[in-house]
Amino acid sequence: MPTPATRMQTLRPSYIREILKATAQPGMISFAGGLPDAAHFPVTEIRTAMETLLSTPECFQYGATEGERPLRDWISQHLTPNTHTDVLITTGSQQALDLIARAYLNPGDTVILEAPCYLGALQVFQLAQANIITVPQTPTGPDLERVTHLIQQHKPKLFYTVPDFHNPTGVCWSLETRKAIADLLAQHPDTLLIEDAPYRDLRYTGEPLPRISDFTTVDTLLLGSFSKIITPGTRIGYVTSSAEILRPLVTIKQASDLHSARPMQTLLYQLLANGILDSHLPTLKAHYQQQMGRFVNELTQRMPDAKLQAPQGGMFLWLQLPDIDTRVLAAYALDEQLAIVPECAFWPEEQAVRHGIRINTTHTPAHQITDGVNRLVSALARIQA
Amino acid sequence: MPTPATRMQTLRPSYIREILKATAQPGMISFAGGLPDAAHFPVTEIRTAMETLLSTPECFQYGATEGERPLRDWISQHLTPNTHTDVLITTGSQQALDLIARAYLNPGDTVILEAPCYLGALQVFQLAQANIITVPQTPTGPDLERVTHLIQQHKPKLFYTVPDFHNPTGVCWSLETRKAIADLLAQHPDTLLIEDAPYRDLRYTGEPLPRISDFTTVDTLLLGSFSKIITPGTRIGYVTSSAEILRPLVTIKQASDLHSARPMQTLLYQLLANGILDSHLPTLKAHYQQQMGRFVNELTQRMPDAKLQAPQGGMFLWLQLPDIDTRVLAAYALDEQLAIVPECAFWPEEQAVRHGIRINTTHTPAHQITDGVNRLVSALARIQA
Repeated sequence: MPTPATRMQTLRPSYIREILKATAQPGMISFAGGLPDAAHFPVTEIRTAMETLLSTPECFQYGATEGERPLRDWISQHLTPNTHTDVLITTGSQQALDLIARAYLNPGDTVILEAPCYLGALQVFQLAQANIITVPQTPTGPDLERVTHLIQQHKPKLFYTVPDFHNPTGVCWSLETRKAIADLLAQHPDTLLIEDAPYRDLRYTGEPLPRISDFTTVDTLLLGSFSKIITPGTRIGYVTSSAEILRPLVTIKQASDLHSARPMQTLLYQLLANGILDSHLPTLKAHYQQQMGRFVNELTQRMPDAKLQAPQGGMFLWLQLPDIDTRVLAAYALDEQLAIVPECAFWPEEQAVRHGIRINTTHTPAHQITDGVNRLVSALARIQA
Repeated sequence: MPTPATRMQTLRPSYIREILKATAQPGMISFAGGLPDAAHFPVTEIRTAMETLLSTPECFQYGATEGERPLRDWISQHLTPNTHTDVLITTGSQQALDLIARAYLNPGDTVILEAPCYLGALQVFQLAQANIITVPQTPTGPDLERVTHLIQQHKPKLFYTVPDFHNPTGVCWSLETRKAIADLLAQHPDTLLIEDAPYRDLRYTGEPLPRISDFTTVDTLLLGSFSKIITPGTRIGYVTSSAEILRPLVTIKQASDLHSARPMQTLLYQLLANGILDSHLPTLKAHYQQQMGRFVNELTQRMPDAKLQAPQGGMFLWLQLPDIDTRVLAAYALDEQLAIVPECAFWPEEQAVRHGIRINTTHTPAHQITDGVNRLVSALARIQA
């Protein structure tokens, strides 16, 4: 067989993926994945919307690479910053990220990320053979002084951010940080901001804040997803920006998969046009907030030494155990039939000893939370013994 | 804005795409695209299969990168050469091609293609910054002597082929050519064969021939698609090979879009399990054969000087007009409100004067065929005047 391409050497298989394989074993409780609660998928609304597919068989024909016009228009009217004039429909927002990397990065080009970082973004930038530079997070967003220094020194092509309920840390950027980063980027128009906002609509407490892209005068890229608020299996996401910024993404998408599944786009448009966000989202948020509360209660009671900041929204709790090598904790937890993701999985270099663990709060049935936390406590006790 | 990546410079926007935009104008007849006939989509069967989606809401959850197990097993049992032990579901077979290029090609690596060549393959290999070398086609497949010489001289990583009813030429490789290429590749295991077979099931006359992959002992890649025999909008294709060959593709797909739309995979599996290929394919083939016959009749009668070989299957007629620059003919045809694709679109370098045109036979309503051919004759008369 021929040798795989050089880019394969920088891309490591996903640690989470390996853990998720373990979760298929019977008796396992998983706090590890990033899955929404399938019991809360809007099945009734989907049934109604599906009738549309059958009455519009043309949605089974080849379609436009950019996506279905009604869906693009709906997103444009309801979900897009004023300066963003164009919308590209993608196979999940994950594909948008991959298209951006392929359109703008040569091997060795610099990308700045908040670290710990969304693993899927790490994989995309590793695959692009980018020079990945990380900036530490504070409770109000990335360290501003450090970002400023890095942008001035390295002139990165891309700055990848998750300002709302960050994966894995749950951090939500403050208004001041958003404005400051917007100002900074206005001074460095060759650094393109990627604002990845899959959890933005899952706010449980506090006031919604404008997006970074709402403050900027220069081009930015906004990634959106319906995976966390409707369903993920349909794989429909989007990226918005100016037509000029999106043009190379469209060209690559054409070669990459022609277009995303049209019946899924039509279904999603129908759901949105029928008001799914008004009818479904409040119930979903109430459910997820309750789940988050249960986890916070259990963990603060049973693990009083852990550092834990309840986030204002999203799908993850970030637990810090200052003296613990959480890679070892995760291995011990697997012995107890509990899957968690240790912090090392969210860094470009996995080797260093890290003290955080990520806990997904949306997918575990309520009756398993106490049991799962018990297993975590047992694993921790084994390390401390 | 940041400068787009270097790879964007080698990828030209699709000529066909530009022509297809023109076809949206009222009054236009299009022989240009590669669309199946939407009037023959199996809507009734789709309606039945869709009930399954609603009774299995888990298909709306995140899924495995490799694809849905029942669909992969079905393909494995029914559509796969013996030596191919693994199946990866992709967003159309177009994505399979892109994943192969990303997994195996460094910039400058050599790829051999039959030319003229499927435009989507050209785009993928241009995007991969490959060294593209073309081999001329004969009525029985690629020129064997030339392929042998090229493989010995250039040690290409990939040899991309469409052995059944080639796009755009309609050529079907002879049994001898298939065996000879299989033997040749057995001697050069570092050159990986891509056997792209989207039209294979659309045979109208003659006996079915084994695939090249059926003869080889070394690994090959087989691309399959349901776009031409069921519907294309669902964007479900596949690639089969050994697990070892597919592994880097799976890793890239994970970073690229996590997985293809699950409800579409479930729908397709249900259609296949319900016997769609037995119930639907014979009717579809009879219809397409009739369409092909109408085109052949009209064209041989009205354009007696054109070189035309009626293919044994597929979706395209290849017409050669030895003294004509078909790029000019295509422009004149557009003036007559007829879209056709000139040969230059199917070559890595568009500039040379070429004499072929591709005519899609599946999508034009029967009553428009005569009218469309009249327009082509008018355009030709203008050149010859």
